[in-house]
Amino acid sequence: MADHPVLKYVSAGAWSLNDVLPSEKLFHAQIPNSPEARWASIPPVLEKLKVKAKELGLWNLWLSGGDFQGMAGGEGGGLTNLEYAVMAEIMGHSAILAPQSTNCSAPDTGNMEVLARFGTPQQKEKYLVPLLKGEIRSSFSMTEYGVASSDATNLRNTTALPSSSGKLSVKGHKWWITGAGDPRNVIHIVLAVTDPKNPSPHKRHSLVLVDPRSKGVKIVRPLTVFGYDDAPEGHCEVVYDGVEVDVDSGVVGGKAGLGRGFEIIQARLGPGRLHHCMRSIGIASRALDILLQRVSDPNRKTFGKHLREHGTVLADIAHSRAEIDSARLLVLAAARRIDIGGAKGAMQDIGIAKFTVPSMALKVIDRAMQVHGAEGVSGDTPLAYCYASLRTLRYADGPDEVHIQQIGKNELKRVEGLRQRSEKVKKESDRLLREDGKLKAKL
Amino acid sequence: MADHPVLKYVSAGAWSLNDVLPSEKLFHAQIPNSPEARWASIPPVLEKLKVKAKELGLWNLWLSGGDFQGMAGGEGGGLTNLEYAVMAEIMGHSAILAPQSTNCSAPDTGNMEVLARFGTPQQKEKYLVPLLKGEIRSSFSMTEYGVASSDATNLRNTTALPSSSGKLSVKGHKWWITGAGDPRNVIHIVLAVTDPKNPSPHKRHSLVLVDPRSKGVKIVRPLTVFGYDDAPEGHCEVVYDGVEVDVDSGVVGGKAGLGRGFEIIQARLGPGRLHHCMRSIGIASRALDILLQRVSDPNRKTFGKHLREHGTVLADIAHSRAEIDSARLLVLAAARRIDIGGAKGAMQDIGIAKFTVPSMALKVIDRAMQVHGAEGVSGDTPLAYCYASLRTLRYADGPDEVHIQQIGKNELKRVEGLRQRSEKVKKESDRLLREDGKLKAKL
Amino acid sequence: MADHPVLKYVSAGAWSLNDVLPSEKLFHAQIPNSPEARWASIPPVLEKLKVKAKELGLWNLWLSGGDFQGMAGGEGGGLTNLEYAVMAEIMGHSAILAPQSTNCSAPDTGNMEVLARFGTPQQKEKYLVPLLKGEIRSSFSMTEYGVASSDATNLRNTTALPSSSGKLSVKGHKWWITGAGDPRNVIHIVLAVTDPKNPSPHKRHSLVLVDPRSKGVKIVRPLTVFGYDDAPEGHCEVVYDGVEVDVDSGVVGGKAGLGRGFEIIQARLGPGRLHHCMRSIGIASRALDILLQRVSDPNRKTFGKHLREHGTVLADIAHSRAEIDSARLLVLAAARRIDIGGAKGAMQDIGIAKFTVPSMALKVIDRAMQVHGAEGVSGDTPLAYCYASLRTLRYADGPDEVHIQQIGKNELKRVEGLRQRSEKVKKESDRLLREDGKLKAKL
Amino acid sequence: MADHPVLKYVSAGAWSLNDVLPSEKLFHAQIPNSPEARWASIPPVLEKLKVKAKELGLWNLWLSGGDFQGMAGGEGGGLTNLEYAVMAEIMGHSAILAPQSTNCSAPDTGNMEVLARFGTPQQKEKYLVPLLKGEIRSSFSMTEYGVASSDATNLRNTTALPSSSGKLSVKGHKWWITGAGDPRNVIHIVLAVTDPKNPSPHKRHSLVLVDPRSKGVKIVRPLTVFGYDDAPEGHCEVVYDGVEVDVDSGVVGGKAGLGRGFEIIQARLGPGRLHHCMRSIGIASRALDILLQRVSDPNRKTFGKHLREHGTVLADIAHSRAEIDSARLLVLAAARRIDIGGAKGAMQDIGIAKFTVPSMALKVIDRAMQVHGAEGVSGDTPLAYCYASLRTLRYADGPDEVHIQQIGKNELKRVEGLRQRSEKVKKESDRLLREDGKLKAKL
Repeated sequence: MADHPVLKYVSAGAWSLNDVLPSEKLFHAQIPNSPEARWASIPPVLEKLKVKAKELGLWNLWLSGGDFQGMAGGEGGGLTNLEYAVMAEIMGHSAILAPQSTNCSAPDTGNMEVLARFGTPQQKEKYLVPLLKGEIRSSFSMTEYGVASSDATNLRNTTALPSSSGKLSVKGHKWWITGAGDPRNVIHIVLAVTDPKNPSPHKRHSLVLVDPRSKGVKIVRPLTVFGYDDAPEGHCEVVYDGVEVDVDSGVVGGKAGLGRGFEIIQARLGPGRLHHCMRSIGIASRALDILLQRVSDPNRKTFGKHLREHGTVLADIAHSRAEIDSARLLVLAAARRIDIGGAKGAMQDIGIAKFTVPSMALKVIDRAMQVHGAEGVSGDTPLAYCYASLRTLRYADGPDEVHIQQIGKNELKRVEGLRQRSEKVKKESDRLLREDGKLKAKL
Repeated sequence: MADHPVLKYVSAGAWSLNDVLPSEKLFHAQIPNSPEARWASIPPVLEKLKVKAKELGLWNLWLSGGDFQGMAGGEGGGLTNLEYAVMAEIMGHSAILAPQSTNCSAPDTGNMEVLARFGTPQQKEKYLVPLLKGEIRSSFSMTEYGVASSDATNLRNTTALPSSSGKLSVKGHKWWITGAGDPRNVIHIVLAVTDPKNPSPHKRHSLVLVDPRSKGVKIVRPLTVFGYDDAPEGHCEVVYDGVEVDVDSGVVGGKAGLGRGFEIIQARLGPGRLHHCMRSIGIASRALDILLQRVSDPNRKTFGKHLREHGTVLADIAHSRAEIDSARLLVLAAARRIDIGGAKGAMQDIGIAKFTVPSMALKVIDRAMQVHGAEGVSGDTPLAYCYASLRTLRYADGPDEVHIQQIGKNELKRVEGLRQRSEKVKKESDRLLREDGKLKAKL
Repeated sequence: MADHPVLKYVSAGAWSLNDVLPSEKLFHAQIPNSPEARWASIPPVLEKLKVKAKELGLWNLWLSGGDFQGMAGGEGGGLTNLEYAVMAEIMGHSAILAPQSTNCSAPDTGNMEVLARFGTPQQKEKYLVPLLKGEIRSSFSMTEYGVASSDATNLRNTTALPSSSGKLSVKGHKWWITGAGDPRNVIHIVLAVTDPKNPSPHKRHSLVLVDPRSKGVKIVRPLTVFGYDDAPEGHCEVVYDGVEVDVDSGVVGGKAGLGRGFEIIQARLGPGRLHHCMRSIGIASRALDILLQRVSDPNRKTFGKHLREHGTVLADIAHSRAEIDSARLLVLAAARRIDIGGAKGAMQDIGIAKFTVPSMALKVIDRAMQVHGAEGVSGDTPLAYCYASLRTLRYADGPDEVHIQQIGKNELKRVEGLRQRSEKVKKESDRLLREDGKLKAKL
Repeated sequence: MADHPVLKYVSAGAWSLNDVLPSEKLFHAQIPNSPEARWASIPPVLEKLKVKAKELGLWNLWLSGGDFQGMAGGEGGGLTNLEYAVMAEIMGHSAILAPQSTNCSAPDTGNMEVLARFGTPQQKEKYLVPLLKGEIRSSFSMTEYGVASSDATNLRNTTALPSSSGKLSVKGHKWWITGAGDPRNVIHIVLAVTDPKNPSPHKRHSLVLVDPRSKGVKIVRPLTVFGYDDAPEGHCEVVYDGVEVDVDSGVVGGKAGLGRGFEIIQARLGPGRLHHCMRSIGIASRALDILLQRVSDPNRKTFGKHLREHGTVLADIAHSRAEIDSARLLVLAAARRIDIGGAKGAMQDIGIAKFTVPSMALKVIDRAMQVHGAEGVSGDTPLAYCYASLRTLRYADGPDEVHIQQIGKNELKRVEGLRQRSEKVKKESDRLLREDGKLKAKL
């Protein structure tokens, strides 16, 4: 019973209320304003939260598979995807602090999966164990500057080719490398071409491990999302200008990993997409909670009415409730499907969640902003930041449009079966009409 | 195992494909065109389907409670609401024939519930038993001509007051009395004022049983929904011009039922609303199936492309799929909630389904119509008729707007709890900021 | 001054209020219910309205060009397209009666254009003159059964090929032939293949004149639009089974017209599309007027409030007002553009109106239906019929999707110019940055 | 001819392309990163642009009335509102730089109107003349911290009451004071209660002139809009803590201006709302131009297609084109209405533009962001900043909801006229039916 997931939900809920939410303001206050200092340190409150989370067993909750068993730091987890979906919604209420405090935040989770499933023992020892313990941070370096990266076969400009020294020399220009500003970051997993002439465009890439403190790595600048820089993690433009790595230690999986870049990133993306959706439900729920309180504020009567007495406000609330509820059910169903049939078997459900949940959450947040007037777009509520941050999910890990087209195509696979059914129905229908003298002659 | 619901689903699916869908055209062909003859007979194919449905145990499936146990004709049923929801979706694929063939169609189902729970033994014998057996049909006579009936307290113009003969004399002008055109109809359950001076506006009404063949009943005209008259059932304007009924036999519940009209109709509406939603999922699914086949028709290339190759068509398909899936989950969750906590405990979930599902289904059908061009609005596909028929669900049993306002108000009940939480968070947040020297002075 | 368009607007407005709107119920009452009789006669009230309209100079108002000058019956008209747009909006308020009463209704208007611009003198004498006088009716027979007719090059199954008698023998299966049920109809203009082997798919067709009373013409059945049959005009399925026509008299333009079918129908469609939009503005305006009155009905309080006091009702009204106003401006601007640059120069504006106006009007009507509850979908208000009828405009004369894609492609033609501008801006921007020492080195 | 507005459009267009757009990057590069330095200086490029704009006669273009005639600096202008609308759209293409460079930016324009129409000669001399010349900047200080300011009668917490010195002492806590961070700002026009006991809540306030460099003024902090601080202008929280002002010089209009605060701000808001809409059309147009170029970038193929070849992209383009066009027509029509009947006579049109145009522009920008992927939310395109900035227009100068309710109520004023018409129609309709023997008896 001690491990029963419901107990974890209760524990997480209490922790969120007592520890995480009250720490948000302090977290932001502890990030310096100066453009340089912002990237030099981690707000101390975050480390405190991590200690407490570990004590409460709220650590590495996303670990659902068996890949980590017996590994130092690989405790925690053990939840099904369905259970983790509930947990992620709870954590979504404080979408920056809670995932980081529990070692459940992207891109580390996906990177840990990659290392666990495809890394060599040495790579696991060096990077996976400290990641699982929350001692270091990592980046996933995929999107290329000036390239339509939503079609990954376009990623041709970053290479890791043998140099005169016998090592691989990594050269490329990437951007939107989340976490690359973090002073704790010691590892970038870089998608790079290692076999440019392979006839299959899906076998030309490998994942290369680059220490950002190496010679040749240049963090060009932090990028902004709307006006937010997300310091100290950041989303950075990065140039790899001839960074030398060894094949055995520096390619995920060592020599055996050469050419498997695409295979590995595919495996990485499925559940990750759903994790984002899970948290988005929590973010939308918090936005609705904030909206409800604002429209009930007795000091905010306009034209003789509380905001909550306006029919359009009630309609906004009702639609938000309905949209959150149905999005939640989609996410839970997809999580359950992963539990039953694996990420592959759940691609349709994950895809549907992927293109519906963030849009839904943006709509709810937008309504919450609107009832706040100017305050809604400011830093005095979490709404504008959440909006900006969720807006990125409409293209991250594949833009909505790609998922929409894919689901459309999947559905079309049903046509042949439907056609057979329809023919059968028509035949029998004609028979019945004929029997009854009601069949019209073909014109 | 023989009774396992999954077996029922399989059986219902096969029956739908083999018997019901092939009978649709014949059903329509067996309804005469002449304005009078349309109302005089029932298409024989319907009776055949009923016989087969009974044989297969697909009869009275909506019976989920215990009110009917041991009653002649009260066999069948036994499904939970969740199980019935799945079944109703299957039946929704042929939304006219399947519910009627299985004795699961409104308004009979609600009327049977009323009689079972509130009728006298004689009333049950006379009306409930033949209804359960599918031998007669019934109407529920509530909406009044020229009155805003969505607020039931407005229904003041139909009265059943003592006449000189010692009986009640029913006088009133109703309309939208579904099924009143049906030649098998032998009973109208009429909401009428019996105690006009009762201080509580909710205790003035009773439900009165009127045989439409009685003296004083005038079926004025069938009304149309868009251009459909729904013969032979119809939606009729009806005048009760001094119909005499006896209190004991003619008031639901006899003397004890006097003044309980509102109480009874409340009980009648909850699950009924969800039944409509359940079927709507099936209707929308069928519309999507029809759309998929149309856009894949190899004879229908336009501008060098199959319709299915157009990106906007794929997007329509994907959105339809996502909307049907999430609406289905809402309906299933609401049904499950009824199973757990009764209709009262599920009011929030039923209300959300009530105002989202029909709109969703209309959107899907509209897309299916659009890819058919003119054929889509004609009688050659079921789409236009389904559209018209589903459009009525946006106001029947309470317009969307009423449910939306209600859900909005329900959500607002959470505010007090949220406010307490927020205060707690703020207090702790201030403490942390103060401790860290970061608390700003109040201005 | 007597001919000033503003006087026509005033005159049309008064006539609409005093004559047309009061005749609507009688018009419908004068159409028999019996399935046969419905198609046998024309409601006498219509002829009365035509007489009055002629007296008032409200006749053939759509005649904007010079093609009809000096022709018997070609009086009237003389309005610019902009002026006619205002007039058509006024007439849209009674969208069945007003256009027919003023000889401004489709498909006659387009057919008259075809005959005036491309007919032989004999064809004009025989068909155009009585059409201009409103003595006969006509059909345009284009859509083929079972064929994706929105791409007109697909129309290959109706042929008019030389028979042994030296005449052309028309064979084909058409449907959605509007007006083919009308007892006054004496002429179908049929798009048929006359030169099947012509290398250009746009030169294979001609327009053939078929008298529906000829041997070989079979009116198979009237089709319905959401249950409405639009008797006595109707939209019919028609089989031409070897109807003989003479080339000189029976091909539009005689021998010289052979192979010009596509050229002629192109010319026919442009302004016609806008006429529909113009009337749609009037229909939407009437729907809003009806909505406003309903929500202000003092007898229709619900839950202690008039409908007009509900915030969501006010929002529906405001959005309807805004949408009608902006759609009207689009239509007026497109009409003005035709006046300035001809239909060809206005294709972009007509296309935008074509895919936005009907959808807008449907939304407004749907809101009006919703506030009426069941009455809104019945025959007791004009709303449901208007909805059904406007719904057909989303695919008639080209489905929304085709126009949307076309406008998208037109916009893309601007890209080259934009790119040149952008390069210029970038060059100058770089120069300014360089001068100021702020230009960053290329990575 | 030299002053013909079309020449101004051409001149403005060329200037925008040659001078303004190329200066945008430099403008941003010239704003320091450091949190303090950002507010200390104005980017020099702005002053250069102002000089050039003056030379070209592109200065104070918003001046449409006669209030400024003969005043030093009051040259320029002379455009009608309709002409200015076209000009503002052109300037909207570079929505930060162009309005500021031409002295057409809020809040200065509104403040100049206030001073011109209500200021004393001395106030005009001191503040209006240098504002017209673009030498100083100003703020309008209205919104109060913690108060629902969209209902201006709630603004009760800022007072300007007589102190012992005989002067007025201004005390209050305001926020969202745009321009208060600007080092050139020398004047805040502060809405303050001067007559708290006046029985009319609309006569209690005056507009008080406060020099922000005075003792007692505290600029608390800049607020952010989606993370942007809009330095060096900013939107600031400001405390007035006993600032002393003289009635004659410090109240707009001197003694005679006491109690006229509300009257004056009403006059200020009308055209200002439309100015924002005018510029929004330009912003949306630029977003569409950016989208068009992005989807045509030959380097950005995905899945074998250019983005522009995807049907959904074409649909996005077509809808954007249609929405911009119809919004533009609404704005131009409203501007024309002001020209004809003054701001009061155009309230309906301004209101409709106010609640439709910003939402439209946000939709277009959002689509443009989406086709850019991550780049779209970054600082590398103007899109995200434009989104943030336009988002504020959905509540600034009155939230959408207030305008929507107002338009709804205006429309309802038509009901009495409609009812009379309907009664007339009904009477005549009944007469015609009766005459024809078709009138049904009342039930």
